[in-house]
Amino acid sequence: VFSPHSFAQTGNVRWKCATSWPKSLDVLFGGAQMIADRVSAMTDGKFTIRAYEAGELVPGLQVLDAVQQGTVECGHSAGYYYVGKNPTLGFATGVPFGLTAAEQNAWLYSAGGLELIRAVYDDFGIINFPAGNTTAQMGGWFKKEVKKASDFKGLKMRIPGIGGQVMAKLGVNVQVLPGGEIYLALDRGAIDAAEWVGPYDDEKLGLQKAAKYYYYPGWWEPGATFDLMVGKKAYAALPKAYKEILASACAEANLAVAADYDAKNQAALQRLQKGGTQLRRYSADILKAGNKATQELHAENSAKNADYKKVYTPWNAFRRTIHAWHQINEKPLMDFND
Amino acid sequence: VFSPHSFAQTGNVRWKCATSWPKSLDVLFGGAQMIADRVSAMTDGKFTIRAYEAGELVPGLQVLDAVQQGTVECGHSAGYYYVGKNPTLGFATGVPFGLTAAEQNAWLYSAGGLELIRAVYDDFGIINFPAGNTTAQMGGWFKKEVKKASDFKGLKMRIPGIGGQVMAKLGVNVQVLPGGEIYLALDRGAIDAAEWVGPYDDEKLGLQKAAKYYYYPGWWEPGATFDLMVGKKAYAALPKAYKEILASACAEANLAVAADYDAKNQAALQRLQKGGTQLRRYSADILKAGNKATQELHAENSAKNADYKKVYTPWNAFRRTIHAWHQINEKPLMDFND
Repeated sequence: VFSPHSFAQTGNVRWKCATSWPKSLDVLFGGAQMIADRVSAMTDGKFTIRAYEAGELVPGLQVLDAVQQGTVECGHSAGYYYVGKNPTLGFATGVPFGLTAAEQNAWLYSAGGLELIRAVYDDFGIINFPAGNTTAQMGGWFKKEVKKASDFKGLKMRIPGIGGQVMAKLGVNVQVLPGGEIYLALDRGAIDAAEWVGPYDDEKLGLQKAAKYYYYPGWWEPGATFDLMVGKKAYAALPKAYKEILASACAEANLAVAADYDAKNQAALQRLQKGGTQLRRYSADILKAGNKATQELHAENSAKNADYKKVYTPWNAFRRTIHAWHQINEKPLMDFND
Repeated sequence: VFSPHSFAQTGNVRWKCATSWPKSLDVLFGGAQMIADRVSAMTDGKFTIRAYEAGELVPGLQVLDAVQQGTVECGHSAGYYYVGKNPTLGFATGVPFGLTAAEQNAWLYSAGGLELIRAVYDDFGIINFPAGNTTAQMGGWFKKEVKKASDFKGLKMRIPGIGGQVMAKLGVNVQVLPGGEIYLALDRGAIDAAEWVGPYDDEKLGLQKAAKYYYYPGWWEPGATFDLMVGKKAYAALPKAYKEILASACAEANLAVAADYDAKNQAALQRLQKGGTQLRRYSADILKAGNKATQELHAENSAKNADYKKVYTPWNAFRRTIHAWHQINEKPLMDFND
């Protein structure tokens, strides 16, 4: 009944995908690779995407630029690496005291968030597809303990996005480095502190060899979303079924990357602690100061940037609503697990 | 360059999908409809699935049977409706004090859970694809307040799955009804209490008109997963690309249904409270008794049923690990939100 070659009549499509990740970060780079694998599987190998690690085609923090310029058809990166171009891109990934992975998905897929974010990417000739989430991150590595908000003053710390802008308000000398460059900078003392993702990734980067104190919670990244950034011209040239398949593969990756981090982080944390890493919880003083600085920054950015205000206002209303809901349904279960 | 008809050489496939849901439950039935829509879109309309509401083709709680018998190629239902056939199917959906939606996805996709569950469905000639999640549910509707565990004794309550087996241990006269039949039974006093999903669905069923007290948290369903149950013969006859497309559409539905519930529940809860619904939190006495009964049931089922033991043992180890992780990363954020 069926032809063995379902897509025999369709032309081949070959895309390149630049990423912001070293291949050694197998969950994160794996998100890009999964999209490639799934698209190929769903088209009998007619639509293929080759994922390149950071630096292979373009530097890790210039993926959006490469897609915008048409150097590559697509890229796997995080919107918040590009807040220098437009701070509104911070909401594509996540902002301090913002949304967890589940909440971000609810906002993006069911509360108008994706349309709002796409309007921002559109200015760069890009359409984005959420394509991975770290889930709630850790609060970073420090060479010395930080007990109160004033301890941040003068620290050189690697932290990108709106979280970095908030840390700057707390007196931090903010650095933005791609993942593959953090260990050396921290080990050599070019920076005093750094955050990446969580135990599984951080262990692979070797950050535990360069700093002793590992903080939680990662209040600036309750759930960081990655995007497949696709050049609108390349996208428009796809047959309709391939467009749908690409979207579906990205949703799969969005789900799978989060599941993978959730499954692997605790074992990695236990290995780190066994190896001498000292776990520290951020004090209420630091959380309060971070939250205050965050609200100030939202107000300032909203006043300066019409895009930011257009996204922040409904986003913040949604944040309050869904946080209230999770206080009812998930938190009492977590309280009992204590 | 491209043919306008990507799938022109592939035969048409027409499937029927029985579901356990009335169409009025638009998020849940929407999960089945989304799979149909996405499969059609990804194959240029060559592979179509028609979703039927509960009772149209088969009764809502006989979907697995219909797939097993080949009456339909697939069904959208919950494994835990069929614990009478094999209690191990409870883990396909979720069990008391078990895994949240995120944790269940981590277990299924990244910790071997899906393979374990598929081995159970295989006995029924079925391969399952996770295809929706309610996220953490509410703890049900009661005509009278329940303040301590002994208040459950003698109550007639609608509650399926392993949660129902646990409630039986607490002295409940357990009833299993499909969603569309709950309101009448509760309103007419055939049952004293009932749980369905959460505010958005429960409001649509009208349960607030039949009982006054609405409890949380839904400790027996921290995140209920629905499955697309596919007959293995029908599945084997699909072209390879269609198999991959079906899997991807189900992953999309798994993500989208959870996002939709998360986005819509709080507004519904506020409407219900405005209309007179009294929100009540389960007491520590009830949670402790429920947890004790749950652990006893796991031990009994493991002793009686080799499948159950084979799934429960690694599942429980995973549960402890991921609960520990979420105490570190998500809970401190939720504590601060308080």
